[in-house]
Amino acid sequence: MAFELTQDYLDLLIDAIETHDDDFLRQAMDELYPADMAALLYEFPTDEYAQYIIAILDEETAAQVINNLAPNWREDFLKAFSTETIAQFISYLDSDDAADILNEQPTRTKEEVLALLEDREKARYIIDLLHYEEDTAGGLMAKELVKANIKWTVTQTVDEIRRQAEKVEKVNSVYVVDDNNVLRGRVSLKKIVLSRVSTKVADIYEDDVVSVDSHQSAEEVADIMQRYDLESVPVVNVNGRLLGRITIDDIVDVITEQAEQDRQAMTGLSGGIEEDDTVWASVKARLPWQIIGMAGGLLAAWLTDMIGKPVLGAVGALAYFMTLIAGTGGNVGVQSSSVILQSLASPSVVEQSVIRRLLKVFSIGMLNGALLSMVLFLVIYGATRDLKLSIVVSISILAVVLLASFMGTVTPLVLDRFGVNPAVASGPFITTANDLLGLTVYFFTAKLLYSL
Amino acid sequence: MAFELTQDYLDLLIDAIETHDDDFLRQAMDELYPADMAALLYEFPTDEYAQYIIAILDEETAAQVINNLAPNWREDFLKAFSTETIAQFISYLDSDDAADILNEQPTRTKEEVLALLEDREKARYIIDLLHYEEDTAGGLMAKELVKANIKWTVTQTVDEIRRQAEKVEKVNSVYVVDDNNVLRGRVSLKKIVLSRVSTKVADIYEDDVVSVDSHQSAEEVADIMQRYDLESVPVVNVNGRLLGRITIDDIVDVITEQAEQDRQAMTGLSGGIEEDDTVWASVKARLPWQIIGMAGGLLAAWLTDMIGKPVLGAVGALAYFMTLIAGTGGNVGVQSSSVILQSLASPSVVEQSVIRRLLKVFSIGMLNGALLSMVLFLVIYGATRDLKLSIVVSISILAVVLLASFMGTVTPLVLDRFGVNPAVASGPFITTANDLLGLTVYFFTAKLLYSL
Repeated sequence: MAFELTQDYLDLLIDAIETHDDDFLRQAMDELYPADMAALLYEFPTDEYAQYIIAILDEETAAQVINNLAPNWREDFLKAFSTETIAQFISYLDSDDAADILNEQPTRTKEEVLALLEDREKARYIIDLLHYEEDTAGGLMAKELVKANIKWTVTQTVDEIRRQAEKVEKVNSVYVVDDNNVLRGRVSLKKIVLSRVSTKVADIYEDDVVSVDSHQSAEEVADIMQRYDLESVPVVNVNGRLLGRITIDDIVDVITEQAEQDRQAMTGLSGGIEEDDTVWASVKARLPWQIIGMAGGLLAAWLTDMIGKPVLGAVGALAYFMTLIAGTGGNVGVQSSSVILQSLASPSVVEQSVIRRLLKVFSIGMLNGALLSMVLFLVIYGATRDLKLSIVVSISILAVVLLASFMGTVTPLVLDRFGVNPAVASGPFITTANDLLGLTVYFFTAKLLYSL
Repeated sequence: MAFELTQDYLDLLIDAIETHDDDFLRQAMDELYPADMAALLYEFPTDEYAQYIIAILDEETAAQVINNLAPNWREDFLKAFSTETIAQFISYLDSDDAADILNEQPTRTKEEVLALLEDREKARYIIDLLHYEEDTAGGLMAKELVKANIKWTVTQTVDEIRRQAEKVEKVNSVYVVDDNNVLRGRVSLKKIVLSRVSTKVADIYEDDVVSVDSHQSAEEVADIMQRYDLESVPVVNVNGRLLGRITIDDIVDVITEQAEQDRQAMTGLSGGIEEDDTVWASVKARLPWQIIGMAGGLLAAWLTDMIGKPVLGAVGALAYFMTLIAGTGGNVGVQSSSVILQSLASPSVVEQSVIRRLLKVFSIGMLNGALLSMVLFLVIYGATRDLKLSIVVSISILAVVLLASFMGTVTPLVLDRFGVNPAVASGPFITTANDLLGLTVYFFTAKLLYSL
């Protein structure tokens, strides 16, 4: 079912644009969903082609396509359109999407579009939404929803649905409020369909509805909607008054973005890089972490010179195992931090005590290190018949595994406490730190055992 | 809003279970959602406590709690209940959840439970679902849905909704089929609420509904639902006949699991490890990749002995930069593969040619490598005043960055082509391979430039 485009078809479309074959284009677009058209627009050689396509679409479809564009691209793309046209597009969108698009635009465009909107209720909705932080429940919610007073009957509620029908595209639930607009519960559309028209809302509504506060973070909202399998969640203010609702499709985007950010943090890429970015943008996203990695490498060289020199001078073979020691430190640290990351992402309901956590990490590290250490001893002794060397390397590995397990556990917890994305703890910075730690332990162990 | 439990409260509950204070327990559970109760059950010292809680709940709530348990835990947990009781639980669940739970059980339990189900239609539904692969649209779908014949009126449709109301918990759309059960489209509940009872379904249904085939993979379904912002999607067979529907909450789980698996693959953990697993399970999940990493380290040692020995013997300082070279290779490789991973996860609609891709990777690698190489030259020359050493290390870095960019790009593409999760390309295996590659390049460059 998913739409896929061939280069040949794209060439056909480009031809049609150049020869102004609008009939062909309209027919082609008629077979696509707005999300597919949006994906298609990126592929044209210049923005003018994409703008040509937007211009031949009916306004509502054009609005949906624009709504599906990637924000950073859309910001520039819309510059080709007059504020009047942008206002037309906005008038077809829900308040949350409208607010997102306007937030990308310069203040002047934003204000002109808001002034031009014929639907004043929508304009008020959008202005209201512009106040909320982007990554909070308030920033995610739409103002469009259907609500019913708890004193109403089903007939009155159906009338309200009819009144709102054009404005609220997807209706799953009707939210129930009291005279002060305080959220009391919800009624499903299914129940409304199946109830007699004279039934009171008060008799059929569910009162144990899950809601979120407007200041809660997007991640918290995602966690709650996921935990309770919700399709939409009402947003309330501190007094329990109903402000808006968040639908699951917006939350799916939050979850995907979160995963993407975590991965980028783990692999040491900065700032939302994508494959089709320019060469220079790609280099810029990669360099910072590579430089940190290199600085780590230089520090390792300095460390070797300072602490390692006498040991390496005395026992040249020790140099052979530097990569192994540093690498194992890095690997173990990343694994430990990954486990902690996961438990930070879906926290257990009971807070684990830090001491219990660390004791467990220590046991895992001991067992892990002991096993690796034994294997290593046998392999190295088997290959070199050098007992002292085998002992030095295998004891170092045990120490390195223990230390790296500890660092890998503590670092994400500390970062999280200070509000830094703990996923960076699986990234090059921590890997490099663990590399260095490993080498230091190695050289000191060697010094000690060789009595240098 | 999210539920959090203190150790004190848990102790209270444990006390209440030990003194059989069922009233207190029922009251406490009354304040929780099933998802929270499920999370709570993990925290009791033994399964018997958890089973006690399940036993005092009404059957429907108990069924929901069991539905929310983690599959690996649930499998054992249910052993304490008779097949009659399990059949009771199952009778309250949707066919997709019921099939998942039964699939975890031994064949004998599965068959007994199916035989005991009073609702024969549900039993047929479940048996039907057991045939599908877990990670396909068929394995995700529920059989419960409301459908209307295209010839019906709104009244007939509402009657059908009433008939199905008990069985289908969440109704957003009514699917429209013809006499052969071929999917023709959908009608939203909103439209049904707002239409006259004599209206024909044929006059109000939307015919451009997105559907998925039963054999499509869970990831494809997730991609489609996300792209088109769907709350539910109908599943059809090859002849277009309506088989079931998938709701977004199941897809959110797929997306989250996918992200989790990718992260585990990237950090070298095998098999869904979690922080509260036993020490031994944790060690088992970590060891395989640590051993691979160690094998890599030993290979590095061997490599150093075979190729590096003469160089290191002649210029001892070369040993100092082994960690830097190996580390940079690893870092660059992981970054490149991460960018490719991302574009594999959300593919562009136009297939990029492999040659264009590689040319770009080459440009990025060149620019990146040249910059790092220059910085490195300046730092090392500044510190050592050794021109030859500075040249050897900085030329090696350029070569390593180029090679690692190339490997990091090609490996995930090749793995993906062969159906292996490409996320492992950011994992320890590839990092280790890049480490070794880096060292080899380093030693050969040194050999060449020192004419050894």
